[in-house]
Amino acid sequence: MKSFSLSKSLKNVRQTTPLIHCITNYVTVNDCANALLACGASPIMSDEVQDVKDITSICGGLVLNIGTLNANTISGMMLAGEHASKLNHPIVLDPVGAGASALRTNTASAILDNVDVKVIRGNMSEVKALAGVSVKTRGVDVDPADVVSHDNIKEAGAFAKELSRRCNAVVAITGAIDIVAYGDNAAAIKNGSPVMGRITGAGCMLSCVCAAYATANQDDIFNATVAAISQFGIAGEIAESRMEVLDGNGSFRTYLLDALYNMDAMTLELRARIEEV
Amino acid sequence: MKSFSLSKSLKNVRQTTPLIHCITNYVTVNDCANALLACGASPIMSDEVQDVKDITSICGGLVLNIGTLNANTISGMMLAGEHASKLNHPIVLDPVGAGASALRTNTASAILDNVDVKVIRGNMSEVKALAGVSVKTRGVDVDPADVVSHDNIKEAGAFAKELSRRCNAVVAITGAIDIVAYGDNAAAIKNGSPVMGRITGAGCMLSCVCAAYATANQDDIFNATVAAISQFGIAGEIAESRMEVLDGNGSFRTYLLDALYNMDAMTLELRARIEEV
Amino acid sequence: MKSFSLSKSLKNVRQTTPLIHCITNYVTVNDCANALLACGASPIMSDEVQDVKDITSICGGLVLNIGTLNANTISGMMLAGEHASKLNHPIVLDPVGAGASALRTNTASAILDNVDVKVIRGNMSEVKALAGVSVKTRGVDVDPADVVSHDNIKEAGAFAKELSRRCNAVVAITGAIDIVAYGDNAAAIKNGSPVMGRITGAGCMLSCVCAAYATANQDDIFNATVAAISQFGIAGEIAESRMEVLDGNGSFRTYLLDALYNMDAMTLELRARIEEV
Repeated sequence: MKSFSLSKSLKNVRQTTPLIHCITNYVTVNDCANALLACGASPIMSDEVQDVKDITSICGGLVLNIGTLNANTISGMMLAGEHASKLNHPIVLDPVGAGASALRTNTASAILDNVDVKVIRGNMSEVKALAGVSVKTRGVDVDPADVVSHDNIKEAGAFAKELSRRCNAVVAITGAIDIVAYGDNAAAIKNGSPVMGRITGAGCMLSCVCAAYATANQDDIFNATVAAISQFGIAGEIAESRMEVLDGNGSFRTYLLDALYNMDAMTLELRARIEEV
Repeated sequence: MKSFSLSKSLKNVRQTTPLIHCITNYVTVNDCANALLACGASPIMSDEVQDVKDITSICGGLVLNIGTLNANTISGMMLAGEHASKLNHPIVLDPVGAGASALRTNTASAILDNVDVKVIRGNMSEVKALAGVSVKTRGVDVDPADVVSHDNIKEAGAFAKELSRRCNAVVAITGAIDIVAYGDNAAAIKNGSPVMGRITGAGCMLSCVCAAYATANQDDIFNATVAAISQFGIAGEIAESRMEVLDGNGSFRTYLLDALYNMDAMTLELRARIEEV
Repeated sequence: MKSFSLSKSLKNVRQTTPLIHCITNYVTVNDCANALLACGASPIMSDEVQDVKDITSICGGLVLNIGTLNANTISGMMLAGEHASKLNHPIVLDPVGAGASALRTNTASAILDNVDVKVIRGNMSEVKALAGVSVKTRGVDVDPADVVSHDNIKEAGAFAKELSRRCNAVVAITGAIDIVAYGDNAAAIKNGSPVMGRITGAGCMLSCVCAAYATANQDDIFNATVAAISQFGIAGEIAESRMEVLDGNGSFRTYLLDALYNMDAMTLELRARIEEV
């Protein structure tokens, strides 16, 4: 199996402080900014058509998150995406709620068609919708029938690899078990905490962290994505382990940012649970 | 007096994980999402006219919160509200800042006229403005002259009942003392903490929690609203009791979500302070 | 040197609960609202052209923050700014990312031209861009070449004073060392914590706190701004001192609000490190 270089990826984020342009939903945008700062990157948000080209130009990477679309932000996403593609910036697509509405599914498809997306990061229901597979959805949550488990992990890996080849992008399908595929390779990452599903924005934050890693590690975006997802999953475990009897999702959210902020190379290397699929 | 079934309402929320469509202000939207997750529901936010019908269709309930209106979101609210009415989804109206501007007062009225609102949840100044009573307002805060106290609780109950009958909706007027009325019945709930007025979004979160309870308990939305408001008030008390000497509204906000998350049936039943008015 | 009256300014905020109209970016708007509540003020957010005039009318002060502009919010800012100018409300301009895009630089200039701005609060790169000095920017972060240090503090003070005279406004340039100038006077404030740069929104929150202080202390807005920035910097120090080994920017953000909330007059007076420049 490919050997992953996690701590070097982390170090590159911290040493280069990549500036990430985020066009993202207004629900979790604050968490996205703090997650980027926690992992050592720097965020800037701008979705206005008159503004995005200038902002993309000074940044190193771009996140397009379709969580709360409107006509203006769709135009902003397209323009920023096309400009970032020209500049060869790593672009992460987060298809929040694809499958839940025609607007979301169609916008995600249009981005894939017109923008040089380097990483797709979503849950299995969203990624299936993006791939044109008919899905039921539970809004922004994964449908129970789509959950990746030990029983279907091979199929999930094969699906992710196929989509990766079709889109020429790293495909990251995250959940209780995360699948990251690029071309003919796929890895499963078994870090994380169930409490991550009880806060809003875990996926949105992770997409931003993936963009930071990809921007700081452009020579191997597959490796960078595995490192980003490992860091995030381990941070979730650390956050959960800090929870005391009165703590709930409010404290967990704080602890998750804290754990991203304090992640060190040794913890990342020793705790990552990565397997080939 | 009507006997309220609190723990059964809570259990129904947790067992059915109602999916709640929120069209809400961008100030407290993150808190609203986390409050829904904390109480066992699942949020999805969408305000774009092209998106709301699809999203409403997959959800079970709807929140319309007028905190930061613009022309687009008003159209989104109307369309979502009309579609949710057809689908017989419980709809909660939060008239944030009604009385503070003509746009807010008129939009809240237009929603009441065109949408089958099942629960109105606001502070006394907002609800009076909605009822067409001339008010002074302090923006999104209740005017001191409108505060419900032991001295005017009967009048407040009578006002809420009258409005409930007129609108055919549960009317929940929250503050230091909360009033919940439906038809000829009204209850006062005396749980809560003064620190809830020192964070942004306590009211917005509560409106979302009311929608979760109403959606999971459609056979008795009056009871469900009383249960939601009791849970929220008790959570406020627990949050306040956790505050140590250096803690302020930052920690309180976290503790409030934590307490919603950890609420158990016995705490809810034993601590609720509900009286007929 | 001018003697600053800090605790009296704080007391005036707490005793008058100034209502502050904020037109601000959607990234940090929740933090802005909680920071205003923490320091004893009350926030209301409204950016829609049809709404802003009514809202400004019931408020005492206005914040214009250009962090996530769009065509609608620019119109809302202009209208609110012109109306607040007529009403002689203190207006704070936060030129987030000025210099990073033409839209931001031009909008900030247009606001200065058309609105009676009383306080400009930004980092040195942003304020230089506003002053028409050619700058490199790192998005919303200060460019390393622009950092105020002991070596260039006199030049920074002179620049701020010149701009203050030109704009007839208090000019507050914040960073590791803060500079506040009005006319021929300038003060440096040496409170704060480096962790403030690792959360999103420290600058945005501070601009809102400046508006609260200016509104509650209209007879001396220079003094009020120095007091606001001192309180904020000391709150950052207290927040940092609470951080334990597992804490990161998530906990720091909570502690910062807590420290604003709990600030007392003696701490403010004793810990403020203000020097003439």
